[in-house]
Amino acid sequence: MITVSEKVRFAETDAMGVVHHANYLRWFEMGRVEYLRRAGVFLNDLMSDGILFPITDVSSKYIMSAKFDDDIVIETTMRQFTRVKMIFSYRVIRAKDEAVLAIGKTQNVFTNASGQVTRLPLSYYEKLAAYCKDDVAKNKA
Amino acid sequence: MITVSEKVRFAETDAMGVVHHANYLRWFEMGRVEYLRRAGVFLNDLMSDGILFPITDVSSKYIMSAKFDDDIVIETTMRQFTRVKMIFSYRVIRAKDEAVLAIGKTQNVFTNASGQVTRLPLSYYEKLAAYCKDDVAKNKA
Amino acid sequence: MITVSEKVRFAETDAMGVVHHANYLRWFEMGRVEYLRRAGVFLNDLMSDGILFPITDVSSKYIMSAKFDDDIVIETTMRQFTRVKMIFSYRVIRAKDEAVLAIGKTQNVFTNASGQVTRLPLSYYEKLAAYCKDDVAKNKA
Amino acid sequence: MITVSEKVRFAETDAMGVVHHANYLRWFEMGRVEYLRRAGVFLNDLMSDGILFPITDVSSKYIMSAKFDDDIVIETTMRQFTRVKMIFSYRVIRAKDEAVLAIGKTQNVFTNASGQVTRLPLSYYEKLAAYCKDDVAKNKA
Repeated sequence: MITVSEKVRFAETDAMGVVHHANYLRWFEMGRVEYLRRAGVFLNDLMSDGILFPITDVSSKYIMSAKFDDDIVIETTMRQFTRVKMIFSYRVIRAKDEAVLAIGKTQNVFTNASGQVTRLPLSYYEKLAAYCKDDVAKNKA
Repeated sequence: MITVSEKVRFAETDAMGVVHHANYLRWFEMGRVEYLRRAGVFLNDLMSDGILFPITDVSSKYIMSAKFDDDIVIETTMRQFTRVKMIFSYRVIRAKDEAVLAIGKTQNVFTNASGQVTRLPLSYYEKLAAYCKDDVAKNKA
Repeated sequence: MITVSEKVRFAETDAMGVVHHANYLRWFEMGRVEYLRRAGVFLNDLMSDGILFPITDVSSKYIMSAKFDDDIVIETTMRQFTRVKMIFSYRVIRAKDEAVLAIGKTQNVFTNASGQVTRLPLSYYEKLAAYCKDDVAKNKA
Repeated sequence: MITVSEKVRFAETDAMGVVHHANYLRWFEMGRVEYLRRAGVFLNDLMSDGILFPITDVSSKYIMSAKFDDDIVIETTMRQFTRVKMIFSYRVIRAKDEAVLAIGKTQNVFTNASGQVTRLPLSYYEKLAAYCKDDVAKNKA
């Protein structure tokens, strides 16, 4: 599990005075990108190698509203990882009182530039498999 | 079931050359807002009456990517409706070939301005209940 | 001058209860895209031909706030057009009372995929020059 | 002048493979919010006191494109400050080579909840005037 700390932007709010629910998906993405970065896998390298990683499934449960200027922590955990897909889960925590604002889950698949599902090259796979081993093991336990 | 027709905006795309997945949640919202409008329920009136309607759950399955300039149709159906919550489902269709690009589901609850769950006033409830009756009946069948 | 009609989306608002100012730039873009489309110039074709059209300058003056559910009209006019750049101006009008909400101006240049300024191929140039002739003439008058 | 460091989010890119130009306005806003915060002026307090601060003018010049995963620095400087308005300027710098990606300028006015221009209460004014004194003096020089 890795964490990313952010401060809620004004532009992320809506007329109900809280963060618009679609923006949590961007936060999940930031957690996911950072997870891969720490494993040594850079999305720019994947794209240069003609590998895309579209989201196929997303779900989110909203518990309390994030507000402008809140300090938040995005927790990201790999749940399943194979050469064709990644499943991550997320928790968005409000820093000041550790309230859980939202929990979420996403699935990405690996495709080529034409959108056909492909297998992640071993050079990437091995780095990421080593990095997420403990996360995935806990998930199975 | 109601439909809303849109053309994909350039600003909705991302560096993978397709619509960013978070934007489908905005499309679902447009469908939901239009559904309520056709039932005679206006979100501005609800907000003036101190009633908010935060999303508590969202899920989306992405089947094919929407691209810039695609004509899309957002189908919106009420699945469950009570005085405390609304569950809607959605399909995003590509107009030119009727391909289903994404399907989704959301739940809203009604709250007061302090975020406590509240019951939708009868004046709103009755309009919307009458409008969505057939949708909800089909769902139960 | 061409017009595009839109309804303000809830996701376009912010915690001040009005449309976030950055979203007007997306509306300008929608006007610009539609202008080009009516001239027979499709951005997808340009991109397939390796021609990009980055914005180099934008300015906007905000007069009154657009709000959720407002019907708006985006007026788009070509001001200058050469084989290396396009200058457009915009007015965002509230439909119900024709109030001018914002006025804006943008400049795009044409570049190749590496970002070097390039000349728009004649096939595109001629279509667009014919289409915008009157707009540009009025601007010089 | 104050600086804010950010990493470009994937969701901020568009189908030209670079950051969509509207997102720079959100970065300017982040710089502005942080500037006020360091002066001890919190936008949530202003809003609680019924003071809004809409943008009336924005301009931006785009020099080079920010890309996904770039480390950027947003420099924010107060240019003019009175009890009715604030003018800020901005530079977006790419951290790795200090290239200037964009420069911008904004004007906010202070209004009451009904949108009428109002004077910033002295308690806020004095904090911010003290904080921005040097910035504004340099601007006049």
